[in-house]
Amino acid sequence: MATRKLLLLPGDGIGPETMAEVRKLIGFMNESHGAGFEIEEGLVGGSAYDAHGKSISEEDMAKADAADAVLFGAVGGPKWDSVAYDVRPEAGLLRLRKDMELFANLRPAICYPALSDASSLKKDVIEGLDILIVRELTGGVYFGEPKEIIDLGNGQKRGIDTQVYDTYEIERIAGVAFELARTRQNKVTSMEKRNVMKSGVLWNEVVTRTHAEKYSDVALDHMLADAGGMQLVRWPKQFDVIVCDNLFGDMLSDVAAMLTGSLGMLPSASFGAPDGKTGMRKALYEPVHGSAPDISGKGLANPIAMIASFAMCLRYSFDMVKEAEMLEKAIADVLENGLRTTDIAAPHAETVSTSEMGDAVLERF
Amino acid sequence: MATRKLLLLPGDGIGPETMAEVRKLIGFMNESHGAGFEIEEGLVGGSAYDAHGKSISEEDMAKADAADAVLFGAVGGPKWDSVAYDVRPEAGLLRLRKDMELFANLRPAICYPALSDASSLKKDVIEGLDILIVRELTGGVYFGEPKEIIDLGNGQKRGIDTQVYDTYEIERIAGVAFELARTRQNKVTSMEKRNVMKSGVLWNEVVTRTHAEKYSDVALDHMLADAGGMQLVRWPKQFDVIVCDNLFGDMLSDVAAMLTGSLGMLPSASFGAPDGKTGMRKALYEPVHGSAPDISGKGLANPIAMIASFAMCLRYSFDMVKEAEMLEKAIADVLENGLRTTDIAAPHAETVSTSEMGDAVLERF
Ligand SMILES: CC(C)[C@H](C(=O)O)[C@@H](O)C(=O)O
Ligand SMILES: CC(C)[C@H](C(=O)O)[C@@H](O)C(=O)O
Repeated sequence: MATRKLLLLPGDGIGPETMAEVRKLIGFMNESHGAGFEIEEGLVGGSAYDAHGKSISEEDMAKADAADAVLFGAVGGPKWDSVAYDVRPEAGLLRLRKDMELFANLRPAICYPALSDASSLKKDVIEGLDILIVRELTGGVYFGEPKEIIDLGNGQKRGIDTQVYDTYEIERIAGVAFELARTRQNKVTSMEKRNVMKSGVLWNEVVTRTHAEKYSDVALDHMLADAGGMQLVRWPKQFDVIVCDNLFGDMLSDVAAMLTGSLGMLPSASFGAPDGKTGMRKALYEPVHGSAPDISGKGLANPIAMIASFAMCLRYSFDMVKEAEMLEKAIADVLENGLRTTDIAAPHAETVSTSEMGDAVLERF
Repeated sequence: MATRKLLLLPGDGIGPETMAEVRKLIGFMNESHGAGFEIEEGLVGGSAYDAHGKSISEEDMAKADAADAVLFGAVGGPKWDSVAYDVRPEAGLLRLRKDMELFANLRPAICYPALSDASSLKKDVIEGLDILIVRELTGGVYFGEPKEIIDLGNGQKRGIDTQVYDTYEIERIAGVAFELARTRQNKVTSMEKRNVMKSGVLWNEVVTRTHAEKYSDVALDHMLADAGGMQLVRWPKQFDVIVCDNLFGDMLSDVAAMLTGSLGMLPSASFGAPDGKTGMRKALYEPVHGSAPDISGKGLANPIAMIASFAMCLRYSFDMVKEAEMLEKAIADVLENGLRTTDIAAPHAETVSTSEMGDAVLERF
């Protein structure tokens, strides 16, 4: 049997405590089912900075490169607010994305039936929501040059960031969105600000052409990103797949995630291009939520997003579809049974701890 | 008595029909109260393009410059989707903002009590909401250079936009936000992406310093813009004044406006710096909603955002505070009385037309 090489990068804040719950699952799968996962561990973010002054080490980058998949927790926190820009916690994550060329970030925004009350939106607006945001992850204003602060003298500085998109970058992310739409409701909404940004003009043009040339069976809409944000709030169920650039994807996927009331539940996956020989895609899986420093170390974190990220990993990186489905079913069962961490509990309702939630999922798995 | 010079730029879509309702109010104030408004009119956006091939003419720019205030409707629509970038409808609006140096855009997101049902959010989340987004309007990725599409050959193009902020631009918008906070709940939340953008690092630094030097009596928070979008959806009442750059302000203010369910009700104001001699600020007032081409010409548009923009104009450009309050009271009365245009009506409820709504406000004014 093939070995399955996993790199775990728990990171900061609630990253380690949620990753611990995934480690239990992996242990169980290895022991009881001989799943053969080989686990490496590494440091990223503020904890890496504290250990050796960089937000990810070359050794850990090499491990990421050698792994079949990376499981990532979360990075950042006020503790590192004043460290230098190049070694800030987020730099580790951005380097992983860029060096592994993980250009396609999939962020499902799903409202778990048992949780539609946890949303700030009205039940009929949010119930049954199941949309997928496909975010470009290695381009745009995140990585374009120049990106700098210039001293202009006289107490004046200038901050500069550059949004850059090339045709091929837009083509490949659009392709991912259209392919995924075919497995869903067959509808893509592309969002940009073509009325203000030249990269938006190009984005719109390339998505339109890619659609016409290869995916005209899929329904395609274009929306300005600000109007898209509005429509997400007004009636999110109008969408199936949303495709957008790195920065709009960051904003819109966070808004979409929060709409569901299930932020602590939502996984994400980031993929590279398929390898020419093996067909394998480099992949990193991470919860949509952040490091939540305010609740870290207290056993309050919801481990489900991290566990659901592992389920995505089973499905997409190891073709273990049955196991992925079983794990997702276990999560749904636990919720149906009324188990709640504080983030998804009704006011004054009983709650369980991070590890109790993890154990409950493991039990039903 | 001083003359009061107003330039009306109705623009496209529902712009003209909503502006018509303001014209009635101005006519009434001139005739019955000798208000002395001198009205000029001009074209902007697609209608200007149709008339003379530019999205605003030099004559109309000169009129804007000579006016005490500009009332702006809305621009854009699918009709002009394929006109050249430089003469697209939005270019007229962007030129007005830039040439008049209207750097401070004030966007209140208010939930009118009579309308809390129109929101997609739960009543307790949205009821009583009253926040103010202060958006920088003449800088950032909207205007930075280079902004272009380069042909790279081999079918590849590159789209580039540049986000640029200088210290003084951040200082002056932060100053506006802090000043306004003092007249409200005394709290400012500054939003950027300092974990990804150098302009965000500078933004954070300058806001922090401006606060420490001049406004330490105001409470100041910093939030990453993506987290800010989430928090707006989760519990918007945690905010008082939000200050952010041009692009984040565009996204966040649209999300905030839609939260209220009162999009057709929300005005905005854009100000320049006070004139050294007269103390007057250049100003442009416009509804937050867009040109809504799908409903234009049908008498379905809600004129209240446009009328409320005129109320802001009375208050801020002409110091007619009593009249502004009377007009705002008239709007509230009309709503209390149950009058609804389709956008804010319950399903199957009776609705009034644009001009009926305008007349009803005028009657109570
Ligand atoms: C941590 C940060 C760099 C990151 C981003 O902005 O991409 C995060 O917000 C995300 O969405 O994954
Ligand atoms: C019409 C468009 C250029 C404009 C913007 O992006 O600023 C609009 O969305 C707004 O928010 O006023």
